[in-house]
Amino acid sequence: MATILVEDGALLAAMQMSAGIVESALDSLLPQAEGAEQRLVEAMRYAVLGGGKRLRAFLVMEVARLFSVNETCAARVAASVEMLHAYSLVHDDLPSMDNDDLRRGKPSCHKAFDEATAILAGDALQTRAFEILAEPDTHSDSEARCELVLALALASGAHGMAGGQMIDMLAEGQSLNAPQVTRLQALKTGRLIQYSAEAGAILGRASHAQKQMIIAYGRDLGAAFQIADDILDTEGNVADIGKTVGKDEAQGKATMVAVLGLERAKQQADHLAAQAAGHLDSFGEKADLLRALAQFTVQRKS
Amino acid sequence: MATILVEDGALLAAMQMSAGIVESALDSLLPQAEGAEQRLVEAMRYAVLGGGKRLRAFLVMEVARLFSVNETCAARVAASVEMLHAYSLVHDDLPSMDNDDLRRGKPSCHKAFDEATAILAGDALQTRAFEILAEPDTHSDSEARCELVLALALASGAHGMAGGQMIDMLAEGQSLNAPQVTRLQALKTGRLIQYSAEAGAILGRASHAQKQMIIAYGRDLGAAFQIADDILDTEGNVADIGKTVGKDEAQGKATMVAVLGLERAKQQADHLAAQAAGHLDSFGEKADLLRALAQFTVQRKS
Repeated sequence: MATILVEDGALLAAMQMSAGIVESALDSLLPQAEGAEQRLVEAMRYAVLGGGKRLRAFLVMEVARLFSVNETCAARVAASVEMLHAYSLVHDDLPSMDNDDLRRGKPSCHKAFDEATAILAGDALQTRAFEILAEPDTHSDSEARCELVLALALASGAHGMAGGQMIDMLAEGQSLNAPQVTRLQALKTGRLIQYSAEAGAILGRASHAQKQMIIAYGRDLGAAFQIADDILDTEGNVADIGKTVGKDEAQGKATMVAVLGLERAKQQADHLAAQAAGHLDSFGEKADLLRALAQFTVQRKS
Repeated sequence: MATILVEDGALLAAMQMSAGIVESALDSLLPQAEGAEQRLVEAMRYAVLGGGKRLRAFLVMEVARLFSVNETCAARVAASVEMLHAYSLVHDDLPSMDNDDLRRGKPSCHKAFDEATAILAGDALQTRAFEILAEPDTHSDSEARCELVLALALASGAHGMAGGQMIDMLAEGQSLNAPQVTRLQALKTGRLIQYSAEAGAILGRASHAQKQMIIAYGRDLGAAFQIADDILDTEGNVADIGKTVGKDEAQGKATMVAVLGLERAKQQADHLAAQAAGHLDSFGEKADLLRALAQFTVQRKS
């Protein structure tokens, strides 16, 4: 594994700074609560603001930085992917899906509001995510904006995130093998993480070769992240994670811990994190934070 | 009211032909049922294919024809808006929303599948609708594609269709006045109908003045359509309409029939239809089918 040149402290500081920028972008890009539909906007803002590690946003911002992209443009795309991610969490938490009452340490959206409002809030968050990408302020070149819309749709649609959630629901109580779980996880969480890295490269008008390396980084990072999530669900504690722990096993969910066992799952996560960092070799020191992020992803406690 | 120069028969034939073209576009643009996520794609196809008047699609196609847009491009945009519309119906029918078991004469999506699948199918239909608009085959100019994405998002987001559904839910059992119901309906159904007309003009690179007239036509047509819908819910029968009848009153829904009474609601619908047709004066005979559509909208039995 490549030596990590950035201390965890430096990474965490950078993530915190990026999260602050993105929080402010989210606040101004989310709709304002006005009109008779105010409750809907309140639920959207509740679901998005003030929570989460903002991993996807950080990926957009850091990859964009590799290509010297204007930070305001990058923050818009980062905010967009966090809205898309928040929509998926709101819908996944619904009673007919994963039925989770807790998210990011507070009541999930349908508990704080109600089911109908949560469904609509998720819907409107998805809409707003695509809208932001198409807005002229996101990139001066409309070709790049269309490319962002296409990449996000591919990552989140029927053969992406939504498809992954479908497989996850169907897999409950079933016995999936390792390749099946790998594909499930690639769709359910991997693709959106991969997209987040790719989006930074699209914004930066990266060359084809550069983009392929960034995508490969995002793909391996996403896979490592999800296995680490499975491990945390087994080993973590609710105060750190801010969501229900041990639910995967209780619900008979298909996880890498279930198919590989805890130790081999940890090895696999470490291997993928190292592989992710390896794709960045040609970017030199500028990519140190992204390399550190790969390691952090599998070592985090929440 | 402007004299209608097209017989109902000619309009119905044109709508049928357009619906055939759009059905075929939908079939090829919807995802294919493959992989472990097959059930999701089946639900998406079930919700979209083989049903409905395809009013929104017809609007896109007919307005695009005014500007001599390539029919294949128009059919893609028409298919996209039908997917968006279908997503809204699937989510509106859910138990926590309008709780409707019947749609287009067959079990609604969550009855034919299950709630979780229906939520995901709606989600992925929305995603695919935006994706289609951003694809190069939709228009050679990426500026036009971005404009389509923006217009659809505005029509369907928190201050559009989703906002309208929120207001509709909150209004149950409340007593809304006519301006409040008018805004509710403009958001819930009007904006997407207006967008459908506008999309044809965007595809055709219409001048600003032309676009404004098309938008005004779409706005008034959408308002007339929704009042006619309210009237049908009062007067229609389930065999014609293919969905539950009399539900609005039973659920204490805010409708124009409830606030104006049946007769004045009918007058208002007729007035709006005539006003819609009036916006097309400068387009000459080419717009006759669109004028006929305005009248048909308020005279239909289903």
